[in-house]
Amino acid sequence: MSVAEGHIAIIGAGLMGGSLGMALRAQGWFVTGTDAEPERADRGLELGAFDAVGADSSAVITFVCTPVSSVVAVARHALAHGGIVTDIGSVKGPVTTALDHPRFIGGHPMAGSELDGIDGSDPLMFQGRTWVLTPTPTSDAASYARLHAVISSLGAVVVSVAPARHDELVAVVSHVPHLVAATLMSVAADCAAEHNTLLRMAAGGFRDMTRIAAGHPGIWLDICTENRSAIVGVLDGVIAELGAMRSIVETADRQRLQQVLGKARTARMNLPVGAPPPEDLVEIRVPIPDRPGFIAEVATLASDLGVNIFDVELSHSIEGDRGTLVVVVATRAADLLRGGLLARGFRPSVSSLGER
Amino acid sequence: MSVAEGHIAIIGAGLMGGSLGMALRAQGWFVTGTDAEPERADRGLELGAFDAVGADSSAVITFVCTPVSSVVAVARHALAHGGIVTDIGSVKGPVTTALDHPRFIGGHPMAGSELDGIDGSDPLMFQGRTWVLTPTPTSDAASYARLHAVISSLGAVVVSVAPARHDELVAVVSHVPHLVAATLMSVAADCAAEHNTLLRMAAGGFRDMTRIAAGHPGIWLDICTENRSAIVGVLDGVIAELGAMRSIVETADRQRLQQVLGKARTARMNLPVGAPPPEDLVEIRVPIPDRPGFIAEVATLASDLGVNIFDVELSHSIEGDRGTLVVVVATRAADLLRGGLLARGFRPSVSSLGER
Repeated sequence: MSVAEGHIAIIGAGLMGGSLGMALRAQGWFVTGTDAEPERADRGLELGAFDAVGADSSAVITFVCTPVSSVVAVARHALAHGGIVTDIGSVKGPVTTALDHPRFIGGHPMAGSELDGIDGSDPLMFQGRTWVLTPTPTSDAASYARLHAVISSLGAVVVSVAPARHDELVAVVSHVPHLVAATLMSVAADCAAEHNTLLRMAAGGFRDMTRIAAGHPGIWLDICTENRSAIVGVLDGVIAELGAMRSIVETADRQRLQQVLGKARTARMNLPVGAPPPEDLVEIRVPIPDRPGFIAEVATLASDLGVNIFDVELSHSIEGDRGTLVVVVATRAADLLRGGLLARGFRPSVSSLGER
Repeated sequence: MSVAEGHIAIIGAGLMGGSLGMALRAQGWFVTGTDAEPERADRGLELGAFDAVGADSSAVITFVCTPVSSVVAVARHALAHGGIVTDIGSVKGPVTTALDHPRFIGGHPMAGSELDGIDGSDPLMFQGRTWVLTPTPTSDAASYARLHAVISSLGAVVVSVAPARHDELVAVVSHVPHLVAATLMSVAADCAAEHNTLLRMAAGGFRDMTRIAAGHPGIWLDICTENRSAIVGVLDGVIAELGAMRSIVETADRQRLQQVLGKARTARMNLPVGAPPPEDLVEIRVPIPDRPGFIAEVATLASDLGVNIFDVELSHSIEGDRGTLVVVVATRAADLLRGGLLARGFRPSVSSLGER
């Protein structure tokens, strides 16, 4: 079943906005694009990222794809027109707190490219990638379920995490690694200023480690401002670990060095690759409890347990009933999620797909 | 003109020894391979890395491709049989000092692969790669020239650096980056133990930065022991720079952050790629002075000046003369090297190729 019914608005016609427009149009959506610089939106129209250019107050979903620093103002404006509003920024806590609206659900696709701007757009950018959503206790369940379905239809794997948790985790896997890459490159550049041969000795490992330092500094200024406290915390951790490494090397503690490098090796080799393979699916049906925030609780619980939610729907079959939340997961993961839900006071039942 | 006359011996049948054997055989050399574990050498024979298995005391050049910790013992044994002896280890100071022999010239090809062992061997592994040689004041000029020619014939670009300098530079572009990659991976793994979703949020940048942490810890134990002081020094520098980065982020100093990231970006974009393109070449002819160590001085001077030496020969045209050192460089680089040589008291003259 196609989930494409109605219009989607994209605000911000850059690499991500353009890629998203192309991917959504391929799913059958009518996509409207705008940008603070109109010629960028026009370029998006030319490239086939948008069906039309201009504001679209009838959009079912608005994707805010502007720089992090303007997300709040732009999203607030979009929320006033109705519909679901989401964004794609790299920091989620401040934005989510500032907006605090049932129809705003923060997002962060873990995808990108070394290209800049709308000309680098790629409709397959989200295929197999993780797309983080950050629902909160005030999130509207139907809005969440709809957004989950649309994003999944682009080939992305939705993972739900609380906004503050998201910011801590991206500090570890994205923000601090970026700053470390820039630091390694700077140290090498200083040394190369004295020793002409240095950079000719830089082989594949060094090239890999510093590749992201070639990116535009622009977005990092906002990221480092908005996610300052998490970044400082993780930097402290990395500096402390490097200090420990220094003392291991200085004392030539081969046994400890082997442990540390062995642990890192195992972790790197186990780093998950791409999307999980297709598998047998079942439904977990949960009567919706009489308490707010259940959608964020169920979605983040599943992510915490490592259970991928393939689909999520709200079913209101009986008049007056609070309804049922239907969550589609892999058969092999059903008991794990069921256990977690029971522990949190939900009343889940598992059924084959289509039994309802 | 082929430089392949006689036998070459390779001691140590791993990834590098196997690749070297294949590359040398492709140039017409008769290559003999040995290993402390005989089945590895046999596997090299099967794979076409070697023409024969066993010791070869008549080798013109012996490449010691064993782990760093056994290079001295193995090289000493090979030197006793005569011929030129070189190695491929990642640390050069201790080995070169311990051996201190005119016919031992340390080497370090800046090449490798994510594969382990002789089955990963690739005859094109050295194509376009930098291969560092570390001649010293006691190095024999003819041995250096011969080794330079053989290595260049494999498609590698020879860069000459004093042994201690080499060790400082690889600490910057290889050893410390490796330890940093392992540290980032460890910090993420610790965090992932608590937060199941973390590693699913690791995108391309994180994967790039931690790729080398997947390598075998084995060789790093030797490297960190042998190059301890340089590694500790560079780690101190990186830790200090990360501390500076931390305070930039903590104080939200956007201007300074933009400077630091911009500098790193420029340096990364200017990182040299592959071998220099083919160009017009000239000879610089230098009467050999009556002082030892001239070959190391000329070769490292060229590398310091960023001048690539395409070929180097010793010419003894007149009986009783001390002879002439002939260095082949790009026409556009000739004056730069000539200036450096004049400043060091040599008497260089530049001539077209083949005028002699």
